[in-house]
Amino acid sequence: MRLKAILFIVDGMADRPVKELNWKTPLEAARKLSLDQIAKAGICGMVDPIAPGTPPGSDAATLALLGYDALKVYSGRGALEALGSGVEVQPGDVAFRCNFATISQKSVVLDRRAGRISNEDATRLARSLSKVKLRKSLNADFLFKNTIQHRAVLTLKGPKLSTAVSDSDPEKVGEKVLQVKPLDNSSEAKSTAKILNELLREFQKVLKNYPVNEERIKHGLPPANIILCRGAGTIPNLKLLSEIYGVKAVCIAAAPLVRGVCRVAGMKLVYVKGATGTPQTDYMAKARAAVQALKSCDFVLLHVKAADVASHDGKAKQKIEVIENIDRMAGYLLDKVCLDSTYLAVTADHTTSTVTGNHEGDPVPIAIIGPYVRRDDTKEYNERSCAKGGLGRIRGLDLMPILMNFLGKAEKFGA
Amino acid sequence: MRLKAILFIVDGMADRPVKELNWKTPLEAARKLSLDQIAKAGICGMVDPIAPGTPPGSDAATLALLGYDALKVYSGRGALEALGSGVEVQPGDVAFRCNFATISQKSVVLDRRAGRISNEDATRLARSLSKVKLRKSLNADFLFKNTIQHRAVLTLKGPKLSTAVSDSDPEKVGEKVLQVKPLDNSSEAKSTAKILNELLREFQKVLKNYPVNEERIKHGLPPANIILCRGAGTIPNLKLLSEIYGVKAVCIAAAPLVRGVCRVAGMKLVYVKGATGTPQTDYMAKARAAVQALKSCDFVLLHVKAADVASHDGKAKQKIEVIENIDRMAGYLLDKVCLDSTYLAVTADHTTSTVTGNHEGDPVPIAIIGPYVRRDDTKEYNERSCAKGGLGRIRGLDLMPILMNFLGKAEKFGA
Repeated sequence: MRLKAILFIVDGMADRPVKELNWKTPLEAARKLSLDQIAKAGICGMVDPIAPGTPPGSDAATLALLGYDALKVYSGRGALEALGSGVEVQPGDVAFRCNFATISQKSVVLDRRAGRISNEDATRLARSLSKVKLRKSLNADFLFKNTIQHRAVLTLKGPKLSTAVSDSDPEKVGEKVLQVKPLDNSSEAKSTAKILNELLREFQKVLKNYPVNEERIKHGLPPANIILCRGAGTIPNLKLLSEIYGVKAVCIAAAPLVRGVCRVAGMKLVYVKGATGTPQTDYMAKARAAVQALKSCDFVLLHVKAADVASHDGKAKQKIEVIENIDRMAGYLLDKVCLDSTYLAVTADHTTSTVTGNHEGDPVPIAIIGPYVRRDDTKEYNERSCAKGGLGRIRGLDLMPILMNFLGKAEKFGA
Repeated sequence: MRLKAILFIVDGMADRPVKELNWKTPLEAARKLSLDQIAKAGICGMVDPIAPGTPPGSDAATLALLGYDALKVYSGRGALEALGSGVEVQPGDVAFRCNFATISQKSVVLDRRAGRISNEDATRLARSLSKVKLRKSLNADFLFKNTIQHRAVLTLKGPKLSTAVSDSDPEKVGEKVLQVKPLDNSSEAKSTAKILNELLREFQKVLKNYPVNEERIKHGLPPANIILCRGAGTIPNLKLLSEIYGVKAVCIAAAPLVRGVCRVAGMKLVYVKGATGTPQTDYMAKARAAVQALKSCDFVLLHVKAADVASHDGKAKQKIEVIENIDRMAGYLLDKVCLDSTYLAVTADHTTSTVTGNHEGDPVPIAIIGPYVRRDDTKEYNERSCAKGGLGRIRGLDLMPILMNFLGKAEKFGA
């Protein structure tokens, strides 16, 4: 019998006790019979995605949960986001996450999202920006692509680039746009900062007075008069999952960042209609896609972003609703996969506190169900119950070897 | 009072839930009052011998349980097996595990054990093989020694050797004997492969038509007409236990591989009459030898192979019987050692599944009894109970420092 596994990662699902929930966590307050059933029939524990007390970014956490040593291989967010948005990034390229934003005449950020500019407007603007020419002497080229609403990615290409440059995005309304600076003394960092500053100035010239922006102003919308950059990144140099474990792996995720991580791990990316990476995503479409994908592969990573979005917005009630939707997905999976030959692991990539609105370094719960797990006596799927489970406290990068061991795909060490 | 410790390692004792045992593990199904008593009076936990999810070989796991970082020091099985069989192996030598085997005229393996050839026949054949002369230009010498039945070890000696060579043993009946190939581009690997291929061809010539084989054929027994090699290894470069902890350490084990590991750790090897490394071993003789050895040393590693053998053969009932024999040994130890001054730890070197017949990466239980352990409320010695114990989940290489700490032999870090 060919053994298979689904790793269900719910972004930011873990939380801290919340006063308005009578000091329960959203997972403890939610009604979630299927998740509890997985905890009951499975083996549970806690995961430190990166390390105890370290708040993980979703990119680094996903790398870790796929078995990579994120502390060693992580090389910035930009390239992963670009890859996940369908932009080609080659080794040596340096990519950035960008926002269409609105600034005042004195370069003070008024709106980091240019009024959540529409995809249509962003596409027209991006087309013009792509025509900008860099001076020959800079010895570099670029790709610029808008993704969803105000979001975009910028990829620099050239022989002498570095990720050691600061952001131009101050990440706060009311602050001035920043000059990009080299973060070390290398000539690569200096030249990358120079290229980026010059390119962003050229972009600004194009955006100023551009017809789209004139229309936006006419309609009372904030003009997209600047591109803000952050998160310089290059492609991490990874061995593919197929090389490490000999598995055919599929990714079901809407969030570009997670798709990017899965792409560098060599996973096949599935497109699911209605999957948006928001609390309004089509949850069941993703669950169906996971079951479908499992038919022709060994390992599916199923990722849902919504819980993190609700947490960042500080909406505990919405987070509970998201978790109840996740529970429906879990119920569907329990129903549709063959549990005699399939392992199902449910976890989060990090704790996101609905109180602080931030990623936190608290560990996340995990439950694994499948034919030969050593079932423990955990009865509920949440932070406190799972902490008493038979898996104990593991690191994110331990999870994939544990799953692959269940699948008979882990390599023996020694003889 | 001089504090002492016994580390009782039962090879492959841990298991997964087994359907025919009503989803209990063999440890859960066995009647084992003494092991349970150790769990009850001691502190329990789970051990990942190498790392979570990594199936350990017995050699690497034993290195780890003796406190060494196996991922760094492990250097192949061959040299350890050779050392444990009483063959001298020097630094720089490359040693192999060998089988007397039977092949067809077309070099297809018919029997990997040449009908489990008797020690007498193997000894006669080995004596002749030892007389083979390698060409001078190969600049190498060798030692060949049979150990038990079809098993033998081959040690290559010379200035330009490498362990980076493939096996000649296909490890499967019905497959062809393999050419030994270099596994990297070094001249050492190339020359080692060449030496080995030439030597094995010479061996084959000697074995063909050798009187012992003619007699075997006459009696309807498969002739030992080839030597199969695998597991190139060299001696790991270790600090001795006496150097690290200042302890006098003794090994009580029948399995050559474990004896070899203990030898490189500088432990004294005790020979126990009736100890065979099989389920028919003289269990109580080993327990008596451990108690005896403890009188004149600080630390005894007591190893029993039998549980692993039963697991590899898929015999859950036999494994239970082995565990019940282990329990009698545990009872004897509890009875005979002074528990005011002796720590006793019971664990396994890895999980061996009676379902898959393989070493698996699931963690193994551990219980430690002794004068000053922080007794927890675990009541039974098995995979699921120990997972709730006070030791939590530790790595193999953590165990020895934990034991040496109880003995007051752990070195302080810092001031």
